[in-house]
Amino acid sequence: QIADAILARADGPLDAVRVLMTAGPTREPVDPVRFLGNRSSGRMGYALAEALVGLGAEVALVTGPTALPAPPVAELVRVESALEMHAAVMSRASGCDLFIGAAAVADYRPVEPAGRKIKKDAGELSIRLVRNPDILAEVAALSPGPFTVGFAAETDRVIAYARGKLEKKGLDLIAANQVGGERGGFESQDNALTVLWDGGSRELPMMTKTRLARELAVLIAERYGERHAASA
Amino acid sequence: QIADAILARADGPLDAVRVLMTAGPTREPVDPVRFLGNRSSGRMGYALAEALVGLGAEVALVTGPTALPAPPVAELVRVESALEMHAAVMSRASGCDLFIGAAAVADYRPVEPAGRKIKKDAGELSIRLVRNPDILAEVAALSPGPFTVGFAAETDRVIAYARGKLEKKGLDLIAANQVGGERGGFESQDNALTVLWDGGSRELPMMTKTRLARELAVLIAERYGERHAASA
Repeated sequence: QIADAILARADGPLDAVRVLMTAGPTREPVDPVRFLGNRSSGRMGYALAEALVGLGAEVALVTGPTALPAPPVAELVRVESALEMHAAVMSRASGCDLFIGAAAVADYRPVEPAGRKIKKDAGELSIRLVRNPDILAEVAALSPGPFTVGFAAETDRVIAYARGKLEKKGLDLIAANQVGGERGGFESQDNALTVLWDGGSRELPMMTKTRLARELAVLIAERYGERHAASA
Repeated sequence: QIADAILARADGPLDAVRVLMTAGPTREPVDPVRFLGNRSSGRMGYALAEALVGLGAEVALVTGPTALPAPPVAELVRVESALEMHAAVMSRASGCDLFIGAAAVADYRPVEPAGRKIKKDAGELSIRLVRNPDILAEVAALSPGPFTVGFAAETDRVIAYARGKLEKKGLDLIAANQVGGERGGFESQDNALTVLWDGGSRELPMMTKTRLARELAVLIAERYGERHAASA
């Protein structure tokens, strides 16, 4: 059995590791035509999924609507809203070793979407919103649960916010990046990340999302391997 | 001069006709990350732009964000919000012969987008919205103005609503289709249209958007030609 384990690891550091991932934006329906969306292209998540497959992982990807070609994962699940993403993740979470929440999940959704297209009679109107479930925190709270990785995309005070999110949600690793700057972020081909964990951090400087995804995948595999070795 | 006009028409029914078009959705910013969007793919508008070029028209296309390749138009203007689309259209409208509003322009926008990403502190919140300018009605009200074509995408009572929109906005032609049904509409490859004008209508049954766009372009050229002949 030890020999088997060693052989299985010969191909890649994540051989036989079951990874569950989310990527892309979610769309929260306002009515049959309109929705509340966000600027996530899904590019970083898709690149990371492909990099993890390259390290030997068996990846299930739950994705919101993107314009990207499907990455070569073992299972691809297409969803639209945060509630759909929540259901797809929670039904699979207990069977995975590693969870990565790379999707930009809407924090809020319209209270009750209108069944018909809203007519524009009023000069002003407002959309009432309620909180969506926190998929990442729910997965991190599972016991026994997977090694859990989150992302933080912020316009300011990025590192302080990311460190707080890591602790508050009980994550094992968080990758933080600044959005709204001149380079990097949601709609760009490039990005830079600061990766934080309990007692450590690493800077991944500005590079293409494809390269950055490979470096992040290797770092995740390292941290996952250390945790695994410590608990074995 | 009469000979020149006849020669110019030899290649296509819309030779030397300057067409201004809009297509795709608009995105109304809520904050730097979130937006209010709609399900328009831009497919019908892009196919119509290409069909009009095929009939000889000189097309300027003002487009919201889509995942489609750029059609072979004379001018392509990329915008995001309804306010940006309004500015791009109004600065060009007086110089065109034919205006086609195929974009799904958001009727409302958030009162004032937040400069920073909104934090999720509250269990509930609401987004206050105000009306956007009505690009189609403003263009139709220009005097002298272009021959003006609108679209109506509705979930119910499509024809009655479209006839009302034609009259209220003073359009020359309107193309109506039902959304939210089993086939056709925003995210489909197929569509069907009912085209209405003052004193007439024509049904264009369910077919691919590419074919439908060609039939609609020919019908627009016919109606434009008749109006032109009547006023000459």
